[in-house]
Amino acid sequence: GAGFRASEHQHCRYNPLRDEWVLVSAHRVKRPWQGQLEKPPNEDVPRWDPKNPLCPGATRANGEVNPHYEGTFVFPNDFPALQPDAPEPDDSGHPLFRAAAARGVCKVMCFHPHSDLTLPLMSLLEIRAVIDAWAELEAELGASYPWVQIFENKGAMMGCSNPHPHCQVWASSFLPNEARLEERTQRQHHRQHGVPMLLEYAEQEAQRKERLVVENEDWLVVVPYWATWPFQTLLLPRRHVLRLQDLCDSERDSLASIMRRLLIKYDNLFQVSFPYSMGWHGAPTGPHLQEDCGHWQLHAHYYPPLLRSATVRKFMVGYEMLAQAQRDLTPEQAAERLRALPEVHYKLRPQ
Amino acid sequence: GAGFRASEHQHCRYNPLRDEWVLVSAHRVKRPWQGQLEKPPNEDVPRWDPKNPLCPGATRANGEVNPHYEGTFVFPNDFPALQPDAPEPDDSGHPLFRAAAARGVCKVMCFHPHSDLTLPLMSLLEIRAVIDAWAELEAELGASYPWVQIFENKGAMMGCSNPHPHCQVWASSFLPNEARLEERTQRQHHRQHGVPMLLEYAEQEAQRKERLVVENEDWLVVVPYWATWPFQTLLLPRRHVLRLQDLCDSERDSLASIMRRLLIKYDNLFQVSFPYSMGWHGAPTGPHLQEDCGHWQLHAHYYPPLLRSATVRKFMVGYEMLAQAQRDLTPEQAAERLRALPEVHYKLRPQ
Ligand SMILES: O=P(O)(O)O[C@H]1O[C@H](CO)[C@@H](O)[C@H](O)[C@H]1O
Ligand SMILES: O=P(O)(O)O[C@H]1O[C@H](CO)[C@@H](O)[C@H](O)[C@H]1O
Repeated sequence: GAGFRASEHQHCRYNPLRDEWVLVSAHRVKRPWQGQLEKPPNEDVPRWDPKNPLCPGATRANGEVNPHYEGTFVFPNDFPALQPDAPEPDDSGHPLFRAAAARGVCKVMCFHPHSDLTLPLMSLLEIRAVIDAWAELEAELGASYPWVQIFENKGAMMGCSNPHPHCQVWASSFLPNEARLEERTQRQHHRQHGVPMLLEYAEQEAQRKERLVVENEDWLVVVPYWATWPFQTLLLPRRHVLRLQDLCDSERDSLASIMRRLLIKYDNLFQVSFPYSMGWHGAPTGPHLQEDCGHWQLHAHYYPPLLRSATVRKFMVGYEMLAQAQRDLTPEQAAERLRALPEVHYKLRPQ
Repeated sequence: GAGFRASEHQHCRYNPLRDEWVLVSAHRVKRPWQGQLEKPPNEDVPRWDPKNPLCPGATRANGEVNPHYEGTFVFPNDFPALQPDAPEPDDSGHPLFRAAAARGVCKVMCFHPHSDLTLPLMSLLEIRAVIDAWAELEAELGASYPWVQIFENKGAMMGCSNPHPHCQVWASSFLPNEARLEERTQRQHHRQHGVPMLLEYAEQEAQRKERLVVENEDWLVVVPYWATWPFQTLLLPRRHVLRLQDLCDSERDSLASIMRRLLIKYDNLFQVSFPYSMGWHGAPTGPHLQEDCGHWQLHAHYYPPLLRSATVRKFMVGYEMLAQAQRDLTPEQAAERLRALPEVHYKLRPQ
């Protein structure tokens, strides 16, 4: 259109992975914020606290004592949303009241023995160990369960109740909504275009460059064209990869490196331990291991809530919940800001 | 299944309006909460504050002075996400980079001249005036725009930056995601069963009773079978109604009454001004006024974030954002708790 500028003129963008739209109204970032301020994260976390159930040597809710682990440490979630056994729900006798069985396993994985660390402050070797543990868990739980969701809630703002660096792994007997959605859209794209959607997307973004945040020989991170959260990113491999366990040795090293670079930029953005929820999506597992999943491409989503500062978040509320997600700066503007940030963590910078 | 109990055994429930599932793990409510506590709402809001741009007689961001209004008051949002004119976005030349024009109007509606009131503390006549103003705005903006989203963000926790009782109305040149979804699912249900989905659903819930919160001759409020937020509710008419402006005089009165009863119960639940986002969904407007929209049924969604107390909310984060919504008490348990609460506001109870 004549005179259209994405940073000036509201428009909608289509998310082909979720088959939905986002409203981009970048001019709106000018409005003053008089609403709720978030508490900045607690920066005084003790390295070791025997009362913290995630620490080496601590006693957990079920009475078990953690080993004095030195790398990653995986244990069963003491309050699991999914358990291996649950009876089938009764038939309600009406199609508007449909229930289905849900079975599964919930695990917690500590990234490191020290409570005062986070991924961006860990070494490449230590991050590499986390990646290996992820791949192992996905292979192990994915042997029987159709979906293994690895996710990290980082920061109290993201409902994380423990500052110790950790993630969770929930394996389920069903494909959750997001998996079903991405299964459908990726399958359809593959059928229509003969190439995996996110492989084609990564190639396009590597050429277009305006939404790139960091890249290396195997990976790239972009603020997706259809991002809803202000600084949302998508981590993509350059080659076609179905699942975490399919990554070769050098791809795991380059993944550790690109994750670290991204997360350091995130922390540097507002000079705060950057809150987010992140998680991995790969081809379904269990019975799907036998199927052709060539339409899938492994990827990780990062969903950070902050908008303007360490204490001002984006609220996805009224209009977003009832109508459509809305964002206040363009994905290109977000990518440019992240790109410009140093790759040395603000806490480790020489004074 | 043998021995299945919804309050003991995790299961999934299907939301036919959004074509997605929710994981119900009621046993999980037992876990202790050591995470972030919310600030309880500020209870000392002055009745009139000349510096508050929503107050009668105050000066707004654009320099205009509000009239000394005595009922509801509607004015244009000074930082609108949607404006009437915006050029068409350029063609990106690739199907994975799709943008579309977005045009619209954003209005703010004050419910009452007093900043220290909220809907549950207003009189039936005053709430009725809000309903009439809603119906008028929907008719006026819906004359040309295909979707008119009326929504209220209540409480700082829901991104509301001003305590003065108000809602927003965003009209758009497009059907937002949620509207498209509900359009598709309701149309399909109507085609298959010959009756509007939510009309049939309301009849079923009126019989089953276990998820009813309040009801009167024209309306009912249920915690829907597929609720995701702990105390989410759905407000439904008993007769087939397409849009707010189609409500007759007595239905508007009974709507004021049922809204007030629901909102008093909400405030009484944790003895706090209960935060939520709510909004109306009715048949599309603009060009759709000429179409057969018989599959639509008018309804309002209430999405409140609180879970256990005035300061402990449900976080819809990692698993929810990346896989599927999960809830910690059954909809039946939530309905039972709401049902049992008094219908006199805790602030107005005789000491
Ligand atoms: O317009 P407000 O009330 O300042 O803003 C609030 O509601 C909007 C519509 O849901 C959201 O986009 C904003 O994130 C939220 O803070
Ligand atoms: O298991 P946690 O970390 O205590 O709980 C957190 O993550 C879960 C999975 O996203 C959410 O269901 C909870 O609402 C959130 O507080």
